[in-house]
Amino acid sequence: MNWHLPTDDLSADDARAAEREAVTWRPLADAARELVDLCVMSDVAQEEVRAAQADVEAALVRLRKVRRTQTLGQEHLTGGRRRPWGNPVIGLRNPIAPPLDVRTDPSGRAESEFTCGAAYEGPPGLVHGGVVSLVLDQVLGHAVGAAGRPGMTGTLTIVYRQGTPLGDLRAEAWIDREDGIKTWAKARLVGPAGVTAEAEGVFILPRAIRERLG
Amino acid sequence: MNWHLPTDDLSADDARAAEREAVTWRPLADAARELVDLCVMSDVAQEEVRAAQADVEAALVRLRKVRRTQTLGQEHLTGGRRRPWGNPVIGLRNPIAPPLDVRTDPSGRAESEFTCGAAYEGPPGLVHGGVVSLVLDQVLGHAVGAAGRPGMTGTLTIVYRQGTPLGDLRAEAWIDREDGIKTWAKARLVGPAGVTAEAEGVFILPRAIRERLG
Repeated sequence: MNWHLPTDDLSADDARAAEREAVTWRPLADAARELVDLCVMSDVAQEEVRAAQADVEAALVRLRKVRRTQTLGQEHLTGGRRRPWGNPVIGLRNPIAPPLDVRTDPSGRAESEFTCGAAYEGPPGLVHGGVVSLVLDQVLGHAVGAAGRPGMTGTLTIVYRQGTPLGDLRAEAWIDREDGIKTWAKARLVGPAGVTAEAEGVFILPRAIRERLG
Repeated sequence: MNWHLPTDDLSADDARAAEREAVTWRPLADAARELVDLCVMSDVAQEEVRAAQADVEAALVRLRKVRRTQTLGQEHLTGGRRRPWGNPVIGLRNPIAPPLDVRTDPSGRAESEFTCGAAYEGPPGLVHGGVVSLVLDQVLGHAVGAAGRPGMTGTLTIVYRQGTPLGDLRAEAWIDREDGIKTWAKARLVGPAGVTAEAEGVFILPRAIRERLG
């Protein structure tokens, strides 16, 4: 149940605010990304882990002082647009996200090169099958959004062809066909040894968005 | 491409080592989980964000001192068993994981109550559709493992019934049918307003595991 509005250009005010916010939050999120990796990959002794924990807890004390009343996903910019900075796949403020930078074109092609480190591991040395589905769901959504066919995911099917090695990967998605309010999009994940997984998503244009888009 | 061996009891030595490691790493991972949440939910001023970033970077300096040569998933205990502590859904050392605590029984039932906070948001106020698939893939794997039918995921299909609200959720999985080396398992995600998504996974017993299990 993902939905994706077409991304319009930001107003000059929104663009400046976005730049300021990125400068503020992205370096913290990047440090937190490395912390996530080190939680699974560091092998220091217990006393060092405890000291690191105290450092992180000092950061928590600072960051807890003011809490947003709405999630980032609930925040709207001028004109109803949204910034996906909290998104767990592409969000620059979300340390769970690698994050993916997804390029799209109006034909509905979406693609992204990204890296999955040890924190995304399922089977030994391989990306978790559910992380594969998480990434493919996201790029499918970009494809339908870019094609002007945004929608809620109705069904998502993943076929696993081979294990996806941790490391550098590429995800691609495109529109397969359209019929009324439904759009079928396909995607694949590619590793050094070729395609590791294929996906199909059926996206349904919700009534509210149909009316808004005219 | 997930595979799941039946979980045997640990030896006394392995159990003591596991306890020691959990005491060392779990509190750091829990602090990192809160940091992930605050990266998307804190609203403090830029100078406070910078100071928090410096705190986190002090932790990174400590944790970088010794890096594991293998991922946690590649590490084997006595007898070839594995501890899934790095797993992005259930891993106690992995801040990406909520983490889920999954209960199973030998009939192949698996279930877990867990909470998805703001860092798992896709559409406004709702869990990302790909996170839904990530969690359902994981519990499907527990079901087939508990039934003694561990396997690689061949195909995963998710049908989204309604949006999954952020907050307290329950995931359930069970064996649907078996035929030779294939096992079909089903799962669902349940929120306060009922079932939000259903999943089916086809798991294929790999030759290496077939031979090992006799």
